Amino acid sequence: MTRLQNLTNRACPGMSPTVKLAEYLFTRLVQLGITSVHGVPGDFNLTLLDYVEPAGLHWVGNANELNAGYAADGYARINGISALITTFGVGELSAINAIAGAYSERAAVVHIVGTPPRATQDGRLLVHHTLNDGNFSRFAQMQAHVTIAQTSLRDPRTCPEQIDQVLAQCLLHSRPVYIEVPVDLVDAPVLSDRLSAKLQLPEGIWGTSQNSAIEAVVEKLQEAKQPIILVDGETRALGIVDAVQDLSRRTGWPTWTTGFAKGLLDETESNFHGIFRGKWDEENTQTFFYDADVVLCFGPHFSSTNSFGFTSLPRPENTISVSDSDIKIGTKIWRDVPARQAVASLRRKLNLDMIQRYVEYPKLRRDQAFSVQDTPKEKIITQDKIWRVLSTFLREGDILLGETGTPGYGTREMPLPPRTRLFIPTTWLSIGYMLPAAQGAALAQRDLAASAQQPGRTILLVGDGSFQMTAQEIGTMIKHNLNIIIFLINNDGYTIERCIHGMRQAYNDVSRWRYLEAPSFFGAQRDTYTASATTWGELEKVLGDKRLSDGQGLRMVEIVMDKEDAPAGPLKDLIKAQKAKRL
Amino acid sequence: MTRLQNLTNRACPGMSPTVKLAEYLFTRLVQLGITSVHGVPGDFNLTLLDYVEPAGLHWVGNANELNAGYAADGYARINGISALITTFGVGELSAINAIAGAYSERAAVVHIVGTPPRATQDGRLLVHHTLNDGNFSRFAQMQAHVTIAQTSLRDPRTCPEQIDQVLAQCLLHSRPVYIEVPVDLVDAPVLSDRLSAKLQLPEGIWGTSQNSAIEAVVEKLQEAKQPIILVDGETRALGIVDAVQDLSRRTGWPTWTTGFAKGLLDETESNFHGIFRGKWDEENTQTFFYDADVVLCFGPHFSSTNSFGFTSLPRPENTISVSDSDIKIGTKIWRDVPARQAVASLRRKLNLDMIQRYVEYPKLRRDQAFSVQDTPKEKIITQDKIWRVLSTFLREGDILLGETGTPGYGTREMPLPPRTRLFIPTTWLSIGYMLPAAQGAALAQRDLAASAQQPGRTILLVGDGSFQMTAQEIGTMIKHNLNIIIFLINNDGYTIERCIHGMRQAYNDVSRWRYLEAPSFFGAQRDTYTASATTWGELEKVLGDKRLSDGQGLRMVEIVMDKEDAPAGPLKDLIKAQKAKRL
Repeated sequence: MTRLQNLTNRACPGMSPTVKLAEYLFTRLVQLGITSVHGVPGDFNLTLLDYVEPAGLHWVGNANELNAGYAADGYARINGISALITTFGVGELSAINAIAGAYSERAAVVHIVGTPPRATQDGRLLVHHTLNDGNFSRFAQMQAHVTIAQTSLRDPRTCPEQIDQVLAQCLLHSRPVYIEVPVDLVDAPVLSDRLSAKLQLPEGIWGTSQNSAIEAVVEKLQEAKQPIILVDGETRALGIVDAVQDLSRRTGWPTWTTGFAKGLLDETESNFHGIFRGKWDEENTQTFFYDADVVLCFGPHFSSTNSFGFTSLPRPENTISVSDSDIKIGTKIWRDVPARQAVASLRRKLNLDMIQRYVEYPKLRRDQAFSVQDTPKEKIITQDKIWRVLSTFLREGDILLGETGTPGYGTREMPLPPRTRLFIPTTWLSIGYMLPAAQGAALAQRDLAASAQQPGRTILLVGDGSFQMTAQEIGTMIKHNLNIIIFLINNDGYTIERCIHGMRQAYNDVSRWRYLEAPSFFGAQRDTYTASATTWGELEKVLGDKRLSDGQGLRMVEIVMDKEDAPAGPLKDLIKAQKAKRL
Repeated sequence: MTRLQNLTNRACPGMSPTVKLAEYLFTRLVQLGITSVHGVPGDFNLTLLDYVEPAGLHWVGNANELNAGYAADGYARINGISALITTFGVGELSAINAIAGAYSERAAVVHIVGTPPRATQDGRLLVHHTLNDGNFSRFAQMQAHVTIAQTSLRDPRTCPEQIDQVLAQCLLHSRPVYIEVPVDLVDAPVLSDRLSAKLQLPEGIWGTSQNSAIEAVVEKLQEAKQPIILVDGETRALGIVDAVQDLSRRTGWPTWTTGFAKGLLDETESNFHGIFRGKWDEENTQTFFYDADVVLCFGPHFSSTNSFGFTSLPRPENTISVSDSDIKIGTKIWRDVPARQAVASLRRKLNLDMIQRYVEYPKLRRDQAFSVQDTPKEKIITQDKIWRVLSTFLREGDILLGETGTPGYGTREMPLPPRTRLFIPTTWLSIGYMLPAAQGAALAQRDLAASAQQPGRTILLVGDGSFQMTAQEIGTMIKHNLNIIIFLINNDGYTIERCIHGMRQAYNDVSRWRYLEAPSFFGAQRDTYTASATTWGELEKVLGDKRLSDGQGLRMVEIVMDKEDAPAGPLKDLIKAQKAKRL
C-alpha cells in the first residue's frame, strides 16, 4: 500500500476517498520535491504544523520569519521550489520583504499562512494579530503585490483545485505564491483523487507562429558574422540551463553571463568568459562584445545592478532574446513561445555547419584565480585580490554566496569550479539576505544529496553590516548541523554605502561586535573552528587549515580589511570619486 | 539669531525665505519633541541622513529595519511620537510588521522612506530595490494598509503642507504615517514660512450636541449606585491619562485597567485594583465588577488578548465609553466629541457631592508583591511566584517590558511603583517586539530626562524564543550605553505556544543558545554584569547584587524555568488541559 492509500479514507460508502486538507497540501509539496519546510510557529498555524513531519517533510524552525523567508528563497534556488509557513499578520508581514525578493529574482516559494478560524473572520472579531478593526483581508491584499498567485481556502469542496492552481503558477513562473489556511480547515476532509497523479503543468501550444519565430532566430544566427551568447539569470527560472550550456558548447561562441547567471554554466569551458562587466571590462573584451552583430540572449533580467549601471547590455537591434514565453529579435516580438520548447526546437533546427565557427578564437578576458602564495605576506589583506584568492579555496559542488556589499561585487570576478552554484546580489539587494539564504541553500544541497554520498560545502562571504541584520540564523545552521563556512568581512561598517555616499559619516558605522564569538553564542560545540586574518600571511595559514576546508558543520573566519577599500569596478570608482571630493 | 533664521535664505530678492526639504522635515520633527531618530541607512536615504544630526537630532542606527521599527514604536510610546527612516522597498518592507503593530496599538511613528529619484520612477527604470517591473507604487500601496496617512513628496511647492498634514494626522490619531522622499528632492528648496510656528492641531468644535453628551454622562454617573472605572490603553493615545487619574482619585471609585493600560495610573492609590482579569479574577472582585451598574470606561481597546478572551469586558448597556471622538452610553453614540475636551468638561461638570461615594469601601483584590525571602531557597524558580518576586526589584520611574509569552502574562500581576511605565502584549503580539522596543523606550526615557538628573532603568522580561527573533538590537543598546536590564526566561522554547497547542511537539523547540554570552558577543565591556539563576536562592543573590540593581549600561540575568510551567490564568489553564489530554 502506498503512503497515499494509507492516508485516504472513505467518509461514506460510495463516496470518493478523502484526506485532511493539511495532508493534501503537504502531500503535494512532497510530490513537488520539497523535503524541508521553513518557517516559525504561531498560534494560527500550530495545528497545521502537526501534519508537517507525518507527511514526510522536515521542519526547519527558523529564529524569525524574515530569516525563514530568506532561507526558503535560498532553498528554492537550489531545489527548484520551497515552502514557508508563517502565522497570520505578525508572521507573514515579517516575511514579506523576503517574499518580495523572491518575486523580484524569481524564486519559487510557496508561502502558507495559518489564519484565524473562518467564524472569527466572518464575525469580524477583535482578535490578536489584527489591527483591532475586524478587517481580516488587509494582509492578503499586501501579499498580492509580491506574489504571482494567491488563494484563500474557505470551502473544502474547492480547496484541492485551488491549491493545485497556485502551485502550478508557482512552478510556471518561478515566483512566490500565497495560500491562506484558516485554522478550522486544517483537518477538514477534502477529496484526495487529484493526488493520485503529480501536478501537471500545461505545455505551451506549438504551431505556425512558434515555428516562424524559431525560423527567424535560425536565419539570424546563420547570417551572423560575429555571434556571441549572453546568459542571464532568469535562465534558471525558465528551466533551460542545460540546453543553453549545450548550445554554448556546441556553437563554441564566446559566452558571457550576467552576475545573476554566474554559476549556472561550466566556467572551465574554453569559450566561457565570466561576467561581462560593461564599461568596467577589459578593452579587447568590450570591443568584441559591443561589435557582435548577433547576441543570443537567454533569460534577460536587465536591472541596473545586474548590468553594471546598464553598460553591459547588448544593443537591442542585435539581440535575440529568449524570455518566459516570448522571443524577441530587435523590436519584433513573438508571444506565447515557451522558453523550454523554444530552446529545444532551436537545438534541433540549428545546423552547426551553417553557422559561424571561430576557427581563430578571439583574445578575450578569462577570470583568473590568484594564489595566496603570491601575496605579500606581511601586508594587510586588500579588496583588489581577496576574491580571486578565495577562488582557490573553492571545490566542485560548492555553493558560494556573496552578500550585497563588497562581497557581492568581489564574487563577480571569482572563477568557479564546475557545478558550483553562486548567489550574487542582482536586483532586490536586501542586505542580510545571504546569511539565511546560506542556511536554506545548504539544506537544499543536503536534501538533494541524500541519495548521493556527500553534499558539498556552502560558503558565505558576508560583510559585518549585513551580518548584523540576520545573524541569529547561525543558530539554525548549528541546530541542523549544516556544512557551512562563513567568511565575515570585518571592515567596520557599511562600506558599500560609504562608496555611494557619506564615506566618513557616522551613519555608515555599525555596532562593534565580537564576531568570532558567534558560533559559541549561537550554541555550536566549543571546539568549532574560528580564525581571524588581517594579513595575507595569516590568511594563507587559515586557508591551508584542513579543519576549515574539510571540517564538518559550521566554521567561521573573520577577514579584517580597511573600511575605505573596495573591489575593482563600480565600487572602487565611486569611493575614489568620494575621496577626490574630500581633497 | 535663532536656528531657524540661520537655516533660511532668500533665493531671490523679494522671494520668501527657503530651506532645504530635509531641513524642513527634520525641523518639524525637532519641534514635535523628537530627539532621536531610528532607522537603517540605504542608498536611497543616505543624503537624507546627512541632515539628521545637523538638525539637532540624534541618529540611532539599528541593526535591521524590523528592529528599528519596533524601537521607534517603543520610543513613541514613551515620548509621544517618534521617527523612523528606511530605504525604498527592502528597508520599508522589513519594517512593515512593526508599523502594523504601531497602527494596531496606536504608537505615533513617522515613517520616512528614501525613494529613487523622480526621473527614475517616472522613466520606469529597472533599478535595484524594485520587482524589476518598472512599478514604483507597490510598496506605498502596501504601507497604506498599516498607516493612518501617507504622502508622496513630488513637488517642492506643496511639500511643506503635505508634511504638516501627515504629521498632524500622526499626532491626532497616535498612529503611524508614511512619507516618501525621493532622493533628488532632499536638498530642494521649499518655503520655510510655516516653520515659524509649531504645528497646530485642530481643536474640536464644541456645541450643543457635545454639551448634551456630557450632560447625559453626568446624569448617568449621578444615578449610579455602584459605579466603577475601567481604564484601557487607548487612554494614552487620547492624551487624557492625567485627567483620568484625577477623576479616579477624586471620585474614589474602584478603578481597574486592562493589560494595555497598566502602568498609566498610580498603582499605590487605595482605589486601584490592577488589571481586571475576567473569569480568572478572584470571586469577590468578579462579582463586584459584573454587578456595577455604571462602568466609566476610557480609551477602550477590546481585543481578545486584552480582555482575557472577552471575559473582562463590562456589559455594554452599563458602559459609558470615551473614545477618540465619540461618547457612547449603552447603544447611544454621540460623535465628534473629542476625548480631551470631553474629559475636561466632565471634570468641570461632575459635582462630587452628587455622586456615590463608597463610605464603606468594598473588599477587592489588590496585587501584592512577593518577597524573595519567603521562597523555598533550594527549589527551582516557578512561574506562580516569579513575577510578583520581580515586582520587588522595581523602582519609581522604571520602564518595564513583558514580552509576549509567559512574561507578557506574568507582568499582569506585578504591582508597580508610581511613574513606572509598562509594555505588555495587547493585540499585535508580534514576538520579538519587546527587545528592540526596550532600546527605543530606554532612549526616549534618557532623551526626556536630559534636563533632569538621572533617567530610570528599563527592565526587559523576555523568553528565549522571543529573544532569538531580534537579539541583535542588544548591540544598539550597547552602542548607545543605554541603562537596560534584561531578564531572559530560559524555558527551552515557545512555552506560550506549548500552552496553546503541541506541548511536546518539536516545532515548539528553539535552537539552544548560550544566552549569557550575548553582552560579550554584541560588544559590551568585558566586565558587563551577567548572572544565571535556577533556584530561588540563586535568584535572591542576583536580585540583591548592587551591580545589577544600581549598575549602568547593559546587564543581563538568565532565569531558568521548566518548559511546561506557566503563570496562573489563561496560560496555566491551557497547559493543564493539554496535560490532561495526554494522560
